[in-house]
Amino acid sequence: MTESQGLKDTIACQTRISTIEEDRLSYVGYDIAELMENNASFEEVIYLLWNLHLPTQIELNYFEKSLRSEYAISDAVEQCILIQSRRHLHPMSVLRSTVSLLGVYNVHAEENSLEALYEQSIQIMAKVPTIIATFARLRRGLVPIEPRSDLGFAANFLYMLNGEEPTDLQVRVFNKALVLHADHELNASTFAARVTASTLTDLYSCITTAISTLKGSLHGGANERVFDMLLAIRESGDTEGYLQKKLDSKEKIMGFGHRVYKTVDPRQEFLKEMARDVTLGTDDEAFYRLSEEVENFIKHKKGLIPNVDFYSATLYKALGIDSDIFTLIFAMSRMAGWIAHVQEQRKNNKLIRPRSSYIGSRDLEYIPIGKR
Amino acid sequence: MTESQGLKDTIACQTRISTIEEDRLSYVGYDIAELMENNASFEEVIYLLWNLHLPTQIELNYFEKSLRSEYAISDAVEQCILIQSRRHLHPMSVLRSTVSLLGVYNVHAEENSLEALYEQSIQIMAKVPTIIATFARLRRGLVPIEPRSDLGFAANFLYMLNGEEPTDLQVRVFNKALVLHADHELNASTFAARVTASTLTDLYSCITTAISTLKGSLHGGANERVFDMLLAIRESGDTEGYLQKKLDSKEKIMGFGHRVYKTVDPRQEFLKEMARDVTLGTDDEAFYRLSEEVENFIKHKKGLIPNVDFYSATLYKALGIDSDIFTLIFAMSRMAGWIAHVQEQRKNNKLIRPRSSYIGSRDLEYIPIGKR
Repeated sequence: MTESQGLKDTIACQTRISTIEEDRLSYVGYDIAELMENNASFEEVIYLLWNLHLPTQIELNYFEKSLRSEYAISDAVEQCILIQSRRHLHPMSVLRSTVSLLGVYNVHAEENSLEALYEQSIQIMAKVPTIIATFARLRRGLVPIEPRSDLGFAANFLYMLNGEEPTDLQVRVFNKALVLHADHELNASTFAARVTASTLTDLYSCITTAISTLKGSLHGGANERVFDMLLAIRESGDTEGYLQKKLDSKEKIMGFGHRVYKTVDPRQEFLKEMARDVTLGTDDEAFYRLSEEVENFIKHKKGLIPNVDFYSATLYKALGIDSDIFTLIFAMSRMAGWIAHVQEQRKNNKLIRPRSSYIGSRDLEYIPIGKR
Repeated sequence: MTESQGLKDTIACQTRISTIEEDRLSYVGYDIAELMENNASFEEVIYLLWNLHLPTQIELNYFEKSLRSEYAISDAVEQCILIQSRRHLHPMSVLRSTVSLLGVYNVHAEENSLEALYEQSIQIMAKVPTIIATFARLRRGLVPIEPRSDLGFAANFLYMLNGEEPTDLQVRVFNKALVLHADHELNASTFAARVTASTLTDLYSCITTAISTLKGSLHGGANERVFDMLLAIRESGDTEGYLQKKLDSKEKIMGFGHRVYKTVDPRQEFLKEMARDVTLGTDDEAFYRLSEEVENFIKHKKGLIPNVDFYSATLYKALGIDSDIFTLIFAMSRMAGWIAHVQEQRKNNKLIRPRSSYIGSRDLEYIPIGKR
């Protein structure tokens, strides 16, 4: 038996979906820089992750059409979101329950052929943005906006969220952010989804697991906390003083460091550039400058590198996204990868069931309760 | 890096909760035989798993009181069950959504101190039987029955399910079945719950993950399928012919074999004995005889040992439990262990994040879509 705390140096499965090697992230063999520079659409990347090759024009057209035809959610699902839209309820818990209910209501959820799995994948991928936008608007007391099947994934989401057609820059930038978050090898939520999938349960169960896992503050919860930190720093008016105090009391600085990356998080440079472009000349430019200040200070003082969560906070804010749904946006992107990994697990399944090392008492004798 | 398919020989964490050694199962150092022979109550065992020692009488009184005071579910939760009670919906999907909603509606769900975690543990443990009984009755078109805080865990559940006070034999036997299913080291659902917990998410998320994982046919879904098989055999009127055909076509026989146990599943003997006792002289006795016939045939032909799912099917049926909620009963018992493992993970947390081994293409060049 081999033992490793947190399975840090353990390989849990083989994959063809993504890899992190020498601080570079690739999807199915394409470096993310290659996908960024060529403006690959999120739909292309979903197709890539699920089919392990880039689509031809015909394949992409068909894929986009399938997704768009599934954008709409039923009245029953909208009703479920409505009853969960009060402001004190946790957005990730609401997403967890709503995706779970989507599975309860889908009469085909228990079909377990690979074809059925692909249909379910399309359904979840297409409806989750509608669920999130509907929730975000209801929570702000606004009327939900129906999806528009003439718009692509990124544009349609921003439209449903903000009630107006986004600019080309906004769509391009949001599309890129979706691509950058689409997959990330065996992060905790993806791994949890594969463990769940390995018992041959349905896709909705696997995605519910992934959302439950992403919710934690050591995972998806981080970019919201970056934003809170930036707000607190702005409030304090003294960036260096604020951070130095945190460092002195050994508090964790949100948005820095990574379990796997050592020298650079390859997604971060792109997010930084986009955050700069999209805030340029707007009210949010000061926010971008503040982020840069924090980055430089922490780099200099602690040698820590910013991770994917750091600039995504500023970027999302500039796109009109409330910080309380940042993690939902992360979930919406990572959904592509979660589903890809469940599909892969299912195609060559083996139950994931490790052992534990027992360090407790042994051979105890039961003493009747009166004599304890 | 070390690699093992399905993490078969990998130790993922240390534990003090339970262990399987030489085909013996112990909870916190007490062999389950010790707990069975002394008629330990399920409440005692939950306390044991959560606190790592057996309770004194005062501790047990307080613990039982806490549980009983939380049996009731709110109208909002009952309403959620009602809208999911149509017969074609999958019971485990409904449980998954309902426990998730319990978390959405609990305003203390996000409190993350160990004290808050303990309160949440009590709440989930106490309400899940009410959720299951309410669901089972609504699904059969019956009016739900309110829990009775003068009854213990096992008796109260059977009362809520069947609408009449169970006999002493039924309570004793059901209590033992709950104890036998309470924990089982790092089975897939428990491990998945720990992966989810390791991101520091809330308890409801962890339990939702566990339910999602238990749902699969390679895990909790098995005893329902044992029952279906027994029915089919009875229908066929030819036990040996039916099974031989299955064996010839290399189909899996449900309820036999185990990843970890080699010579015997230590829970199985107890379940067999209880199934015999509770069916003796009733209409279900023939069902028990049939189970025995199947066991003998498969043992003789394939050398396979029956596992925990095999006799629990007959036992549950004799207790008036419909086969379509067998897996919910399993979930209700294992809830004790899931929660114990989440508590343990939280007390000494390390993010569970293994690596994968990449076997796909590398360094691909993005070709514009028109040229693919």
